[in-house]
Amino acid sequence: MDKLSVIKIGGNIIDDEAKLNLFLKNFAAITGKKILIHGGGKLATQLAAQLNIQQQMVDGRRITDAETLKVVTMVYAGAINKNIVARLQSEKCNAIGISGADGNAIIAHKRKYETIDYGFVGDVDRVNTSFLQSLIENNICPIVAPITHDGKGQLLNTNADTIAQEIAKALSNQYEVSLIYSFEKAGVLLDTEKEDSVISVLTPGKYEELKAAGKIFAGMIPKLDNAFAALQQGVNKVIIGQAENLATLISGKSGTSIKNE
Amino acid sequence: MDKLSVIKIGGNIIDDEAKLNLFLKNFAAITGKKILIHGGGKLATQLAAQLNIQQQMVDGRRITDAETLKVVTMVYAGAINKNIVARLQSEKCNAIGISGADGNAIIAHKRKYETIDYGFVGDVDRVNTSFLQSLIENNICPIVAPITHDGKGQLLNTNADTIAQEIAKALSNQYEVSLIYSFEKAGVLLDTEKEDSVISVLTPGKYEELKAAGKIFAGMIPKLDNAFAALQQGVNKVIIGQAENLATLISGKSGTSIKNE
Repeated sequence: MDKLSVIKIGGNIIDDEAKLNLFLKNFAAITGKKILIHGGGKLATQLAAQLNIQQQMVDGRRITDAETLKVVTMVYAGAINKNIVARLQSEKCNAIGISGADGNAIIAHKRKYETIDYGFVGDVDRVNTSFLQSLIENNICPIVAPITHDGKGQLLNTNADTIAQEIAKALSNQYEVSLIYSFEKAGVLLDTEKEDSVISVLTPGKYEELKAAGKIFAGMIPKLDNAFAALQQGVNKVIIGQAENLATLISGKSGTSIKNE
Repeated sequence: MDKLSVIKIGGNIIDDEAKLNLFLKNFAAITGKKILIHGGGKLATQLAAQLNIQQQMVDGRRITDAETLKVVTMVYAGAINKNIVARLQSEKCNAIGISGADGNAIIAHKRKYETIDYGFVGDVDRVNTSFLQSLIENNICPIVAPITHDGKGQLLNTNADTIAQEIAKALSNQYEVSLIYSFEKAGVLLDTEKEDSVISVLTPGKYEELKAAGKIFAGMIPKLDNAFAALQQGVNKVIIGQAENLATLISGKSGTSIKNE
C-alpha cells in the first residue's frame, strides 16, 4: 500500500502571509502522495463584516445563512483556494483546487438539529474516493476548500477538520494514511505553558492514563477523541504539530503521533 | 476525431437566475464532450461597489488592481464557478470547476502596454491541453472561470471570450472543435432590430461582402474577426447564438455558424 498524507492546515497559518508561504514551500517539497485541506482563517469573518452580514457563532460553529454561504464560498473556494494553488504551482507542485461539488468529491446533507438551525451547514455523507484517487494517481495534488454539496444543487459549509478526517478515513482502503493536523502549537503538550513538553507518541492506553490524571488540556479532548475514532476506522496514524515543521511531522520526528500501538 | 463543444456563456445569462438554470439544464443534457467557460456578469462590479473598491474600465476592460483581483477571484472562481458546478452535478453532469491555476490549465503573463497599466490582467501564453484532455476523457466536464496564473504564484484576470478561444484553438489538434458563444441574441443579425434576420452561415467570402455593403453591425466586427482567426488556427466552426437554444446551436439549426466553406 502506498503512503498518503492528508494534511489540514490551521487558520492561524493562513492568516499569516510569511508562515503560509513557508508552509506551502514545505508542502510542495513533500515527495509522497498528499492532499491539503484548508479553512478560511479570519478572512471570511472580515469580509462578512465589511459587507455588514451579521455573523452568529454557536459552539464555535458559524451559523450559515444564504449570505454567509456566499461569503464563505467566495473566500474559501475562491480567494484562499486559488491563491494556494497558484503558489504551489510556482513551487512545481501540480495542485488542483476543489470544493466538494467539483467532481462530486464530497457529498453532504444539510444539518438537522432540533434546537438550532445551523443554516447551510453540511454533515458529510460520502467521499468520492475514486475521483480523489484518480487525481492523486495522475500526480495531481488536491487542495480542498471546506465547501461541500448535497447533490441537489445546494452548496454547504462544512468544518475543515471534519473534511480532513472524512477524506483520511475514506482513503484508508486504498492507502496507508497519515492524517496531519498542522497548526501553531508543537503538538499535544503535557504542560500548555511549555512548548517543549510535547507528548511524542499517544496510544489509547497512554491517553486514558493521562486523561485520568487530568494532564490533557480540556480543549484538546474532542480533537483527540476524534483522532482515536479515525484510527478505529482505518487511518494509520494521526499527527498533530507545528505547521513550520511539516517534513519532520510527516516522518514522525516532531509533533504528537497518535496511533493504536 | 471526436467532437468537442467549447461553450462560452454570456454575462447576461449568469445574472438571470431562471435563464441560468435553464441553460445549465440544457448544457447537462448535451451528450458529447464539452467545456464551459463563464465570466462574472455584474456580480464582480456589485461586490466591488459594496466594498468601496473603485472600478476603472478602459475599452471595456476592467483595470485590475490587487483589491479588484481579489474580488474577481472570489466572484468568478468562488461564488459563480462553484454554484454552476453544484447545479450541474444535480443534473448528473460530472462537472469540475477550474481556474487557469488549477492543474496548471492556463498560463498567462501580466499584460504590458506602454500607455496603460491594466494591473493584474493576463494575456494567455499556453493552454495545458493534456490536463484538459485527461479530464474530458474521464468524463469530467471542465467549468472554467476566467482567472489565469503566471506560473510564478500570481493569479491574473483574463477575458472569458479570449479564454474560450484559446482553449478551442489549443484542443483543435485533439478534437473537432465547435466554439460556441451563447448569449442573449439569436445570432449575427442582418438587421439589429429584427431577431429573425439571423445570418445562418457566414463564410469568409460572405463576411467580406456584407462588411463592404455596411450590413455588419460595427460592434460585431471584432468578435467576427476573432472567430475567423480561430478557424484559421484549427477550430472547425464558431457558432454565435441564443443561450436558451443550446441544443439547436450545437447542431447548427439555430444561431450563426461561422466556417471556412
